[in-house]
Amino acid sequence: MTVKTILLDFRLKKNLDQDVLDNKIISTFEEYFKISLFRVSHNILNNFSQIWIYSDKDSNSPFIISIKSWDNTQEKEISSILTMNIEYSSKRFTELLTCDVIELEKRLTECFPQGFCDKAKSFPVIERGLEFSDYLTTSDNRIVQYNYERVLFSQSSIYQDIMIVDTIDHGRMLLLDDLVNLAENDTSFYTQSLMFGNDFDGKDILILGGGDGGLLKEILDNYKPAFVTMIDIDELVIKAVKEHMPSVCGEYFNDMQGSNYEVIIGDAFQYMEERIKERKTYDFIFGDLTDTPVPSSSNMNEIGIDDKFKWDLICSALSKSIRLLKPAEGKYLTHCNGKSVPLALKTFENLVTQKFNCSYERKETFVPSFMEIWVFYEVSPSAS
Amino acid sequence: MTVKTILLDFRLKKNLDQDVLDNKIISTFEEYFKISLFRVSHNILNNFSQIWIYSDKDSNSPFIISIKSWDNTQEKEISSILTMNIEYSSKRFTELLTCDVIELEKRLTECFPQGFCDKAKSFPVIERGLEFSDYLTTSDNRIVQYNYERVLFSQSSIYQDIMIVDTIDHGRMLLLDDLVNLAENDTSFYTQSLMFGNDFDGKDILILGGGDGGLLKEILDNYKPAFVTMIDIDELVIKAVKEHMPSVCGEYFNDMQGSNYEVIIGDAFQYMEERIKERKTYDFIFGDLTDTPVPSSSNMNEIGIDDKFKWDLICSALSKSIRLLKPAEGKYLTHCNGKSVPLALKTFENLVTQKFNCSYERKETFVPSFMEIWVFYEVSPSAS
Repeated sequence: MTVKTILLDFRLKKNLDQDVLDNKIISTFEEYFKISLFRVSHNILNNFSQIWIYSDKDSNSPFIISIKSWDNTQEKEISSILTMNIEYSSKRFTELLTCDVIELEKRLTECFPQGFCDKAKSFPVIERGLEFSDYLTTSDNRIVQYNYERVLFSQSSIYQDIMIVDTIDHGRMLLLDDLVNLAENDTSFYTQSLMFGNDFDGKDILILGGGDGGLLKEILDNYKPAFVTMIDIDELVIKAVKEHMPSVCGEYFNDMQGSNYEVIIGDAFQYMEERIKERKTYDFIFGDLTDTPVPSSSNMNEIGIDDKFKWDLICSALSKSIRLLKPAEGKYLTHCNGKSVPLALKTFENLVTQKFNCSYERKETFVPSFMEIWVFYEVSPSAS
Repeated sequence: MTVKTILLDFRLKKNLDQDVLDNKIISTFEEYFKISLFRVSHNILNNFSQIWIYSDKDSNSPFIISIKSWDNTQEKEISSILTMNIEYSSKRFTELLTCDVIELEKRLTECFPQGFCDKAKSFPVIERGLEFSDYLTTSDNRIVQYNYERVLFSQSSIYQDIMIVDTIDHGRMLLLDDLVNLAENDTSFYTQSLMFGNDFDGKDILILGGGDGGLLKEILDNYKPAFVTMIDIDELVIKAVKEHMPSVCGEYFNDMQGSNYEVIIGDAFQYMEERIKERKTYDFIFGDLTDTPVPSSSNMNEIGIDDKFKWDLICSALSKSIRLLKPAEGKYLTHCNGKSVPLALKTFENLVTQKFNCSYERKETFVPSFMEIWVFYEVSPSAS
C-alpha cells in the first residue's frame, strides 16, 4: 500500500463563500469520486485563514480532503489562495491518472462564480510511502520524477546508499544517496564532456573516484594511454556496476588490472600523498569525486558542516592534483555542478583562480539523466 | 503571496505511538521552525487511520501541519504509513530550501524508536498559487519542475494558451496549453529527428502546423527545396515566436513568404482538401500538429471525448496526406509521443499499418526540454 496525494490550488479574486464550498465544491468531489463526504472538522485559524477537513463514511481506508483558505490581502488582484489536498490509500482509485485530475480541476473551477477564479493548477498524483521513490531533485532543488521500470540493485555501503534502476528514458541508472550519478544513455554527454576533447594517447592518467567505470572504458576503448590508474573508495559501487551496468564499465572491472590500467579500491587522498612523496607526475588527473556543495544561503559564511566537509574534499583534491600534474602541460579535469546553481560554480571558479592561481576552461552540457545542464572544468596550473 | 507545501512520509514497522507524536515529533517541528504549535484537531477515522492538525499561535499567516497515520495491515513488513504535510504562506520562511527539508526529515526519523522507521522520504518545497507555475508533466504524467527565469509572453488565442519563458537549461521555451512545444536548445534533437535525415533539395514540401518555425528554418537554411508551404491555424503563436524566439524561426516569419516558401495562417485540413481537388502532390508532408492522445485507460474503447477529437485529427491528417503524397516515393514525417506511453505509440503504429496500409520507420530521441525520449515516424505509403 502507498498513499496517493493530489494537490490543487486556486487563485481567487474574492474570498471563498462558505456556500460555494458546501453546495458546489463538496458535491463536485462527491460526484467525481462517487463517494459520500462528511465534514471532519472546520477551524478558523485567523482573519480569513480557515481549514476544513472532509472524509468519506463507512470505508476501511479513508479518503481525506483538506481545504485551506489563505488570506492574501497583501496583493491587490488576488484576495485569497485556496489549496486542496486529496489523500487516499492506493487501494482506492488505482486507475486515477493525471488526465482525470485535470478534468477534476476543470470541474472545480466551474464551481466558482464567473470571474472569481484567476488561475487553477493541479499536480499529477504524487505517490508516498514507496519502498523505492522515484522523485529526485535537480541541483537547484526542483522536483523531477523518473520512471523506474525495475530496481536492479539496492544496498548501502559504509559510504553511501547505492541503487541501480532501469528506466525507459535513460537506460540503467546509478544512484548514490538518491542522486543520479550516471546512466547508460549519458556516455556521450557526461563522459565526453569530462574529457574536454583531449588526446590521451601515450599519457599517464589518474582517475579520482569514477566508480561507474564510464570514464575508464571511454579512455581505454578509444585511446592508447601509457597507463590509467583509477582509485575509488567504494568496492560495492564497482561490484554493482560490474554486474548491472556492463555497457558502461565494459570488462575492465573483471580483472581490475590490465597491461595499461589498474583499478584500486582505496582512499584517493592517501594514494595521492604517497605519489607526491615519490615525486610521481601525471599528464591528466580526473576529479570524478563528489559534486561541489550548493550553498544553502547566499551568505557563504553560513555553509553547513556537510558543505564544509565537501569543500574541504574538493580543495584537497585540487591542491594534491596540482602538485601531481606535470608542470605547465598537466591538466585537471572535473565535473562541478548544475548551471542552475551559479553560486556553487562561482565558488569553484574563485577557488581555482584565487586560491590555486590556475586558469580554467568551462564546458556546459545537458546531461539527460540529470535533466539539466551540467558544468565541467579543465583546470591548468599557471605557467609561473 | 504563494503557499508552500512540504510533503514528508515515513514507512513504519509499528503503528505510531501517541507518545512519540506528542513528545518527540511535535517538539522537533517546534525546535526546527522555532514556533509554538497547538493541536487544532485530532480525529480517528477508522481502525488505525488518524488525522492530527497542528498550527502555530499568534500569527497572522498560519503555519499548518497535518499528520496522518494510514493503517497498512495488508503488508507484512510495514504496519503503517505516516504522511506529514506542512503548509505555510511564502511570507514565512522564505529561505527554506531542500537541504533544510532533508535535515528536517533526518531529525524526524530520529524521533522513532530504533528500527521503527523503514524508510523516510521528503519532497522539495512545492510552491502553490503561482501566477505562472513551472510544474509540468511528461507524457506518462510524471511531475517535472522547470526553472522559469522570466515569462516573456503569456496570452490566450481562441485555440490555446500560449507562453514563452526563458529557462537556464533549455533557453527560451514555447508552451502551448502548459505542454512544452519546443525550446531553443532542442533544434538538433527535435527538428532533426523529425527530418529523418532526408535530402530536401528540389523537393515540394508541406508542413502541417509547425508554428514554432523551427522546421521551416532548418529546411530553408540547409537545403534548396523547390517550395515549402507551411500552414498553421494560430497567428498568435507565429507572432509570439517571431518576437521572442528568433533563433528558432529565423527571419522567415517577417515576410511570411519568399521565393521558395510561404507561411499561411489557416486550417490545414481545408487546405489539404483544396490541394486534393487540384491533384497537387508533395514529396514530403510533415505532420507537426497535436501529439497522439495518451489513453487514460488500458481499454481503448474508453477514450474520452477530447482523445477522440485528437485521434480523429491525426487520422484525418494521415488520410489526406497519403492522398497528397507522390505515389511510391512520397513520405509523411511526424512526431508522435513519449516512449513512456507505449499504448499511444502502438495505437498510432496500428493506424498506419492496418487502417492505411503504410509502412513506417521509427526514431527515438531524448528531447531535453521534454525531459524524456520522444518518438518520431517516417510513414511511407505502400507500393501497391
